[in-house]
Amino acid sequence: MSGKLFFAKDIVRKLSPVAVPPVCTKGLGFGEAFAPHMFEVDSIKEDWGTPQINQFHNLSLPPQCSGLHYGLQCFEGLKAYRDKKNNIRLFRPEMNLRRLQNSMNRLVFPRFDEKEMLDCLKELVRIDADHVPAERGYSLYLRPTAIGTNHNLRVGPADRCKLFIITSPVGPYYPTGFKPVSLMVDDEHRRAWPGGTGSSKIGANYAGPIFHQVECAKKGYSQILWLGPGDVVDEVGAMNFMCIWKNKNGERELITAPLDGTILPGVTRDSILSLVRSWGEIKVNEQRFTIHDLVDALKRGDVEEMFGCGTAAIVSPVNGLNFKGTHYDVPCPLETSVTMRLFNTIQDIQYGDVEHEWSTVI
Amino acid sequence: MSGKLFFAKDIVRKLSPVAVPPVCTKGLGFGEAFAPHMFEVDSIKEDWGTPQINQFHNLSLPPQCSGLHYGLQCFEGLKAYRDKKNNIRLFRPEMNLRRLQNSMNRLVFPRFDEKEMLDCLKELVRIDADHVPAERGYSLYLRPTAIGTNHNLRVGPADRCKLFIITSPVGPYYPTGFKPVSLMVDDEHRRAWPGGTGSSKIGANYAGPIFHQVECAKKGYSQILWLGPGDVVDEVGAMNFMCIWKNKNGERELITAPLDGTILPGVTRDSILSLVRSWGEIKVNEQRFTIHDLVDALKRGDVEEMFGCGTAAIVSPVNGLNFKGTHYDVPCPLETSVTMRLFNTIQDIQYGDVEHEWSTVI
Repeated sequence: MSGKLFFAKDIVRKLSPVAVPPVCTKGLGFGEAFAPHMFEVDSIKEDWGTPQINQFHNLSLPPQCSGLHYGLQCFEGLKAYRDKKNNIRLFRPEMNLRRLQNSMNRLVFPRFDEKEMLDCLKELVRIDADHVPAERGYSLYLRPTAIGTNHNLRVGPADRCKLFIITSPVGPYYPTGFKPVSLMVDDEHRRAWPGGTGSSKIGANYAGPIFHQVECAKKGYSQILWLGPGDVVDEVGAMNFMCIWKNKNGERELITAPLDGTILPGVTRDSILSLVRSWGEIKVNEQRFTIHDLVDALKRGDVEEMFGCGTAAIVSPVNGLNFKGTHYDVPCPLETSVTMRLFNTIQDIQYGDVEHEWSTVI
Repeated sequence: MSGKLFFAKDIVRKLSPVAVPPVCTKGLGFGEAFAPHMFEVDSIKEDWGTPQINQFHNLSLPPQCSGLHYGLQCFEGLKAYRDKKNNIRLFRPEMNLRRLQNSMNRLVFPRFDEKEMLDCLKELVRIDADHVPAERGYSLYLRPTAIGTNHNLRVGPADRCKLFIITSPVGPYYPTGFKPVSLMVDDEHRRAWPGGTGSSKIGANYAGPIFHQVECAKKGYSQILWLGPGDVVDEVGAMNFMCIWKNKNGERELITAPLDGTILPGVTRDSILSLVRSWGEIKVNEQRFTIHDLVDALKRGDVEEMFGCGTAAIVSPVNGLNFKGTHYDVPCPLETSVTMRLFNTIQDIQYGDVEHEWSTVI
């Protein structure tokens, strides 16, 4: 598994002959508009070809490729931010590229050099720098993706693969201020399972939940709280889940599921755990807990806050939860919340208002 | 979920201006060559557009479509056979199209009329009739597929979808006679799980196993025997699994996992159960059994045969099994086996040597 790598210095550019004006991101939905260029590089067997930055275009794919039949597809999501000095910044991009490498390895795709891939990503962002919006909350969403592009229907490793990056200018997740969500606990269906693929960012993990998310929305709830075997709490929607509560020893604690194979190792998750640990005010506990623990704590009045976390929203505060037909209100202090403090702290770093090693000017 | 349907009478044909000679299928791998035409129809929201039969071509897909990011893809596999009278036959195609409907429903794709879709499939096979090979064991493999083709990165139901059929001339699965396989029991990883997507024929179910299949092959075994919670036997590779044994009551019994949500409802599986029931010689038991039951029966000498079953191979006899590092020989009588009898009986029906309601001349 170590063929010919690709290098940023070899990028062949076929750019738009005219400057493409940025779209108006106001009121724009997530991932609806795209910047004018995309990065792409193709592999045959273990060998990567020449990296390219081309105009954004439809992909011409064999209808028989494994990316369209056997779920051989994985992706990443991160953002480029414009700071007050007009610099463009990335937030911990090396974590996303490491996770992409892991997801690609899970799908038996060829390995790439993570530093070179980061340079390719930066080069793409530089070329489309005009499309990184300026206002706080706005950003250029970056979507590295890898798909099997082989020319046969064989169920097995793909002998051809395409790695590409598209980018999409996006508006703030909360255009009118922090908006809490209500959760429907699903104790029947599963997003992931021990021995499955829950810890890789592959398309397969997103296909199953979409049906249940539609059912959840029909019942008036925003997101599903996914459980694992033994009713342990896994994730919320497509985000990691966290709760701040008084634990059984009476300590103020942030609890979240550990990275034991069914949980996506979120970059926002990792950042939050690191920040809260650095504050020294709240104990951080990465440990399995059940929905029953959560409901009991709600009944006792021991829950301070619950939230989802991920790249799109940073944090998503929870104000209610339905388990087996019973609705529980969840404390949601918003303005005075840890959730809000985390949101502001991380945004300050992402937009360079506070200097931090996680944020890199490109 | 009931928009504009499509009808076979409305098919628009853009066919090859010249007759394309059939490929030589001798020695050809599975799904490597394709017949010159393909069927396609696209939906926007709930409405299907005009069905088309075009020349086989690469698909032009938005790089952001959910078919490439969120696993919104499902497929079917069935075959067209040429009988001795030069008729072309399909084997229970309505079962495949019903399962396709179910898989598409699982992915929140629009519904289609199954009878009209069958007529479209037949029309495609008629147009490429010259590409249905003549010899026993040879066939034209048919691959109906549906993918999300939406123009945004939203994690949710696709508002655009493409349903297409490509076809591939294939040689016999056993070119040099019945070839038994050895199984590696995987008690750590999972192909499927209760509450997941194991009973739908969607790409997601194939992505995870590919990594483990590579590891299995490195250890010298052909296929993985997948287990579920409680060590129950699920499937083998991408096939249903069956065992003929003396059960605890001393009865001769064919046992296979029931269709309880983690098992693909195989057309070959259903056909075998129906045939064996009709023989009245062997009890048929669709019930959960564990790998421990299987190993104990092997040790007692109560196992007669084990086999996988599916469209590609019909049946795949097993001659060995590795569980937790111990290798067990599995009785594999081949020429005198039930496996072989089933193989011949089903092939006789598929190739029209024996008239049966499962086989339809088109």
